[in-house]
Amino acid sequence: MTDLTEKGVKVREAYRFLRLASTTVKNQALKAIADSIDMNRGEILDANSLDVLQARNREIKESLIDRLALTEKRIDGMIQACHDVAALPDPVGEIETTWVQKDGLRISRERVPIGAIGMIYESRPNVTVDASILALKSGNSVLLKGGSDAINSNRAIVQAIKRALKTVGLPGGCVELIEDISRDCVMEMLKMREYLSLIIPRGGSSLIQFVVNNSTVPVIETGTGNCHIFVDYNADLSKAVAIIDNAKTQRPGTCNAVETVLVHEKIAGKFLPMMKETLSRKNVELRGCERSRQFAEMIPATEEDYETEFLDLILAVKVVNDVKEAIEHIERYSSHHSESILTEDYSNARYFLKAVDSAAVYVNASTRFTDGGEFGFGSEIGISTQKLHARGPFGLRELTSYKYTVMGDYQVRE
Amino acid sequence: MTDLTEKGVKVREAYRFLRLASTTVKNQALKAIADSIDMNRGEILDANSLDVLQARNREIKESLIDRLALTEKRIDGMIQACHDVAALPDPVGEIETTWVQKDGLRISRERVPIGAIGMIYESRPNVTVDASILALKSGNSVLLKGGSDAINSNRAIVQAIKRALKTVGLPGGCVELIEDISRDCVMEMLKMREYLSLIIPRGGSSLIQFVVNNSTVPVIETGTGNCHIFVDYNADLSKAVAIIDNAKTQRPGTCNAVETVLVHEKIAGKFLPMMKETLSRKNVELRGCERSRQFAEMIPATEEDYETEFLDLILAVKVVNDVKEAIEHIERYSSHHSESILTEDYSNARYFLKAVDSAAVYVNASTRFTDGGEFGFGSEIGISTQKLHARGPFGLRELTSYKYTVMGDYQVRE
Repeated sequence: MTDLTEKGVKVREAYRFLRLASTTVKNQALKAIADSIDMNRGEILDANSLDVLQARNREIKESLIDRLALTEKRIDGMIQACHDVAALPDPVGEIETTWVQKDGLRISRERVPIGAIGMIYESRPNVTVDASILALKSGNSVLLKGGSDAINSNRAIVQAIKRALKTVGLPGGCVELIEDISRDCVMEMLKMREYLSLIIPRGGSSLIQFVVNNSTVPVIETGTGNCHIFVDYNADLSKAVAIIDNAKTQRPGTCNAVETVLVHEKIAGKFLPMMKETLSRKNVELRGCERSRQFAEMIPATEEDYETEFLDLILAVKVVNDVKEAIEHIERYSSHHSESILTEDYSNARYFLKAVDSAAVYVNASTRFTDGGEFGFGSEIGISTQKLHARGPFGLRELTSYKYTVMGDYQVRE
Repeated sequence: MTDLTEKGVKVREAYRFLRLASTTVKNQALKAIADSIDMNRGEILDANSLDVLQARNREIKESLIDRLALTEKRIDGMIQACHDVAALPDPVGEIETTWVQKDGLRISRERVPIGAIGMIYESRPNVTVDASILALKSGNSVLLKGGSDAINSNRAIVQAIKRALKTVGLPGGCVELIEDISRDCVMEMLKMREYLSLIIPRGGSSLIQFVVNNSTVPVIETGTGNCHIFVDYNADLSKAVAIIDNAKTQRPGTCNAVETVLVHEKIAGKFLPMMKETLSRKNVELRGCERSRQFAEMIPATEEDYETEFLDLILAVKVVNDVKEAIEHIERYSSHHSESILTEDYSNARYFLKAVDSAAVYVNASTRFTDGGEFGFGSEIGISTQKLHARGPFGLRELTSYKYTVMGDYQVRE
């Protein structure tokens, strides 16, 4: 039995136990994890320093090191996350609906855990905590495959979690970490249908494509966000600049940041210089279509620019004839994550909301709101850009399935 | 462009139109399809006679020919199905929930269609109608790949459907049939992520396994039912016989038929001869474990028997010590479709409902009730045995996804 299969068996067995655990026990586990991270913070920070040092030696770019590096404040954030998830309602056991059929059968649809879940992610060590606690609270065990850059941090965090699980009598197998960081190992994980019920890849699009193309375990894609904002002919232009500034620069590396702005031709001449002025001060590089470059100096945009999730201070710009052309552009290039129309035109707002086929569609707001916390769901494991099972912010409830329970009196089918 | 790619483009384009169609137009289409099937019934029956003739020439077994063969009555059933689906509520556009965040954003979760759906199924021509009308009503286009045995029937049915779509102004591409019946073609279909949002295989387990192992399009598995009934120590034994008789013999070829009966050791001596007497009269072959064969003559059961969905008048039997051993057996062998406990023990009933991890879990009722119609959902496209997206009877609502619409007043994220 390979090391990976052994871990598969462990998470599967732990799931069978965990799925029947009470909310009380699961919340005790979350609080114990918070305490254990607190008590082991020195160990975790030391392990992280080693990861950061090794990453610097490999000359990894500073934005990635920022994702990897832990501080006392970030450890406090992990601890707070445990308490936050403990405070959320437990979706397991929720009776969604109950009815009685005319033959007297009493049927209920009840939420249940999904199973053992595989998480494949990149270098942020806080994902190790978030994935573990969200899985635990929803009664699922988790097999973690984090980025190789963060292996020492992840090992220290998972040790702290396992110590906590032990104190409340839950199996250590509820959270397992894969330490083999080869691609072969990921490939093996993607075929573990016998043990895993779901795989969630979280990271760049090449990682996600690799998982989607090779997994025989069901996958939920998260996090690819090629998001658009369309500035309509009668939008409030200074508020529109503020929204685009927010959506592009507040946290450019996130999936709900805007990547392309579409501008109605009627106001392009007035709006583009205003937008450029504000964004230039924030060092945003603009890449515009031919029409847009008549109104403001920009680098010429290529086809590829419109297809790209920059995750950086770069913004593609295009002038369009109307809301219809804006929607066509979105239909063609979007990853169907989040799109916003800025308009005072009621009918265009209604039309955009209906016709745009994305997880979150906005009128007069920043795309940055697509987030479990901002939507009021509490923590999230990612933003799903697919249509099956979970779409948009993917939190505790989406980490469950349902089953039907049926109570009868020896009925048979006619 | 291959013929298949061309059809992929067509269903994708038709979806873009269909997803915005009103309930009125969709219901008009369903009624037009009913009329068109009625008007073309001669053509459809002739095509079906040819399929049946060719199947007989290939010496296909009679139970499969029964699935393939159409009669006037079965055509009437198809027409009725169109009217039934037209009468069901349209899930598209349903506002599941709306709330206002403290920053004033008004967020709604609304049901929307999924996309272009691939259906891969075997020889029943009525599936061609069911899949088309359920997809249409839920705003999804459909690419059909039926069994090669039914190709003439399916072609005639799809022609009738396309004629009807034209009369109400919907694109013919809403329903496309793949006529190439090679496995290569199925393989190509399974990679059509650009066009298809979901593939639903409906048929035997080898078909389903092939689809699951090769598809890069998300799959929902339907229809593998290795279902169990556990007869507890204090069940009403004559009612238990009636339930097992119903679950095994009413329609043995269906996925919710029982395949293994587990019997508590305390009542095995009394119950097994009673059960055998009734089932022998219905020509059911019993395959029992060593303990069960002390009480009634049966063919010795093998490990493989417990793993098998017989879909036939064969029943595996096992004597167990208690409800715990029954659940362990189910955990090990079940396809997690439907399981039933027959008992008068309140605690065992509660425990079974909670601990059995299947789509439908029963107390004192036949497993044959796991069905969209019996659950009150109207028509269904299958019974899902997986946990993501849809579990159990898979009807109109499960053929939709959701999106979030957000109405703001130029809010930005702090």
